[in-house]
Amino acid sequence: MNAQAALTSAEERETILETLVIQAELGQDELVRAGLATLHPADVAELLNVVEEPEIKQKVFSFLDPDLASEVLSLVSSLSRAELTQELSNAALGDLVERLDSDDAADLLGSLSEEQARAVLDQVPEQLSAEMEQLLRYPADTAGGIMQTEHVPVPEGTRVEQAIEMVRSHSEKVPDIHNVFVTDHEQRLVGVLPLRKLILARPGESVDKVMDRQVISARVDLAQEQVAQIFKLYDVVSIPVVDADGKLLGRITVDDVVDVLEEEATEDIYTIAGVQRSGTERINLVSDPVLKRVRLRFSWILITLTFELFVALVISKLFVATIEKLAILTAFIPVIIAIAGNVGLQSSTLVVRSIALGTISMSRTARIIFSETRTGFSLGLICGSITSTVGFLMNMKNPEVFQLAFSVFVGMVSALTAAATIGTVEPLVLHKLKQDPAVSSGPLITAVNDLMGTTMYLLVATYLQR
Amino acid sequence: MNAQAALTSAEERETILETLVIQAELGQDELVRAGLATLHPADVAELLNVVEEPEIKQKVFSFLDPDLASEVLSLVSSLSRAELTQELSNAALGDLVERLDSDDAADLLGSLSEEQARAVLDQVPEQLSAEMEQLLRYPADTAGGIMQTEHVPVPEGTRVEQAIEMVRSHSEKVPDIHNVFVTDHEQRLVGVLPLRKLILARPGESVDKVMDRQVISARVDLAQEQVAQIFKLYDVVSIPVVDADGKLLGRITVDDVVDVLEEEATEDIYTIAGVQRSGTERINLVSDPVLKRVRLRFSWILITLTFELFVALVISKLFVATIEKLAILTAFIPVIIAIAGNVGLQSSTLVVRSIALGTISMSRTARIIFSETRTGFSLGLICGSITSTVGFLMNMKNPEVFQLAFSVFVGMVSALTAAATIGTVEPLVLHKLKQDPAVSSGPLITAVNDLMGTTMYLLVATYLQR
Repeated sequence: MNAQAALTSAEERETILETLVIQAELGQDELVRAGLATLHPADVAELLNVVEEPEIKQKVFSFLDPDLASEVLSLVSSLSRAELTQELSNAALGDLVERLDSDDAADLLGSLSEEQARAVLDQVPEQLSAEMEQLLRYPADTAGGIMQTEHVPVPEGTRVEQAIEMVRSHSEKVPDIHNVFVTDHEQRLVGVLPLRKLILARPGESVDKVMDRQVISARVDLAQEQVAQIFKLYDVVSIPVVDADGKLLGRITVDDVVDVLEEEATEDIYTIAGVQRSGTERINLVSDPVLKRVRLRFSWILITLTFELFVALVISKLFVATIEKLAILTAFIPVIIAIAGNVGLQSSTLVVRSIALGTISMSRTARIIFSETRTGFSLGLICGSITSTVGFLMNMKNPEVFQLAFSVFVGMVSALTAAATIGTVEPLVLHKLKQDPAVSSGPLITAVNDLMGTTMYLLVATYLQR
Repeated sequence: MNAQAALTSAEERETILETLVIQAELGQDELVRAGLATLHPADVAELLNVVEEPEIKQKVFSFLDPDLASEVLSLVSSLSRAELTQELSNAALGDLVERLDSDDAADLLGSLSEEQARAVLDQVPEQLSAEMEQLLRYPADTAGGIMQTEHVPVPEGTRVEQAIEMVRSHSEKVPDIHNVFVTDHEQRLVGVLPLRKLILARPGESVDKVMDRQVISARVDLAQEQVAQIFKLYDVVSIPVVDADGKLLGRITVDDVVDVLEEEATEDIYTIAGVQRSGTERINLVSDPVLKRVRLRFSWILITLTFELFVALVISKLFVATIEKLAILTAFIPVIIAIAGNVGLQSSTLVVRSIALGTISMSRTARIIFSETRTGFSLGLICGSITSTVGFLMNMKNPEVFQLAFSVFVGMVSALTAAATIGTVEPLVLHKLKQDPAVSSGPLITAVNDLMGTTMYLLVATYLQR
């Protein structure tokens, strides 16, 4: 395949993959084998993600030679990985663990039951087994959880030509070498040497002379979001990972960070939209059964429902008489709560995203809250004027039309002011309390706004009826 | 400064930066100068982003030596960049254009008025000026718009030792060299050679022997999101950019792609939450005046408002009599529309994000829609049962309680089924029509759901009253 041509046309690539999926499903194995041979490992992974039946997936996977298979396995989705490995023997899994990069091997082991992981580790050389057990001990969402142990360590004082020789000897085991890491006699990191500098240095020179001493590194227990921030901020392609004493443990490469950033963005989006609670399993839109979708989504809905039933209680206990006297009031409840919901969600989303991108500093919170409150008030004046004018024109024959129009106006202004303020304050407070600020958005804000908006609106109407 | 220590503690870094901001605001220039000298360029950029007064920003910037200043300028936010450059003379801007990487220089020129950009280009050497004008012709959101022209081109047949010499001669002008690109006599790209391979090859060998011929490249007119997909899919750190004839034009490095991914995620989040319309200027939570916030946010709110006023019209024309007879119906309108809004937003967010991540294939749309419809129906059964039971218990003394409970149940089931279905179908249709699927989420879905939910609920109640 001409990778270049296929890649520049996303449609063409999609067509090729869909053709292969159909051929695989029809059992045209020879065509599939021939097609696979022309694909980049990443495209094979994509193909396996799209194939739906686990058996066909496993069959296509079995066509790959062992080295390609392990590379593909590190590229497929976690769902596909689970389906591809569930039928493999412990010996085959052990073989994969040996071939995979250490971070992918640890991910694979981590997806197995503890029992099976132990059985698989019995199949691999003792040193690798010990290394894996160590890696598995780091929490998945920390630098330790995403790092790989493969790297090129070079002792202080090594000459450049020796260092190049070390790169050569590691180049089989260590993928994508961009830097070598220089360590002292206690394995503590003292410098970093990009290949670009290594290539340009004189062969006899000591690496100490040419290495960068201002090293950007991550402690093994640093949260993965903060690791991603480091990559973004300092535009680096790989960073060393060290323990509390500064000892070199491994490295993190930018491609893993790209995944972290996408993961974090997805989590924020799902939390803002109240799709499912963070930390729970992801919903797969294509393959998950209805029951699982319902279960994962209901946990958020239940919170909204509880709040909203409280809104219903307030209306039924306090405002039924008001509505009996002027039923047209009901027509504007959806308007007020929808716009308040909209404004509150805008404020909270702006705050949540700014926190995630690191573009607001916490010393400015008072100013941010004040600006947002005034924005909500201004939007309230505009939307309140429009809505009460429309309400007035729609009900000109109703003797109570002034009562309606005034209640709508005051209800809208107070609901939108409150919505913007609460929408801004909630995520800021959660962030101060070291909670996920995204949790406050969507459903929670909506429920609080509905209560505020409805109550203010009907309170004014009730007062005017006296 | 020990960069490593500062970095592993985000709080410490924040404290240092906030101290410098205060010192700058107090005019303690000597302390600021001393502090700046210890910082990484990325941290200086962060500092300038946080300083609020443009004059102080400009003063701090003036403390930097020219090379550091240009690097910092490429790292600050676009807002800061505008503020830092607005007071500079055309000669100073020309000097910056010469020092900056070509992509950043083009961004800087692109942020000026056409007139001023022309005046600045008059200050720089003719060749650079022509190169810049060419770069500025590519749309900002394409491969051409984010690429830099700096790269290391090596003709076919070059020997490895000569290629290394070419890297050396380019290393001043070309930052972060990871690959050299091999071209034929017509400047067409024929291969890529990672530095790792270059360092390990025998000096006398021809680059043709060791280069990768399966080149992953981007056509200059490829959309930036698709460029980002290529980096994600193939785990690369830089790719060459070619024209329609395969001629090499420049390269894109992974750090620019990280920015694109963040940008796309932010745009999706803001569109889903209806913060502002895509393509419009971003709202800055700290510094933007209220008027600008209102203006940018109102464009979405106006759409919701129009829909919701239609909901109000429907209720007031069709259902006032129903509510007059049974005012308690009003109490459950917020419940039904909030939960329907929640479910619809869940479905549309799942679809929008899956499209963005490329995890759903368009051949599965029927299955996706069917699963989501059933999910909405199931959630409707659950929420309908809970809500009508609560409604029943809250109003047991009301003779019409069965009418209420039944209307709530049917209203909830039909509203949630419709919400999940519409929430799934809308973004899929928009995607098929090559529109941004995120537009359908949030406000639009909410408005349609409110109309459906309220109408179904009150229709059933009206029917039962006959």
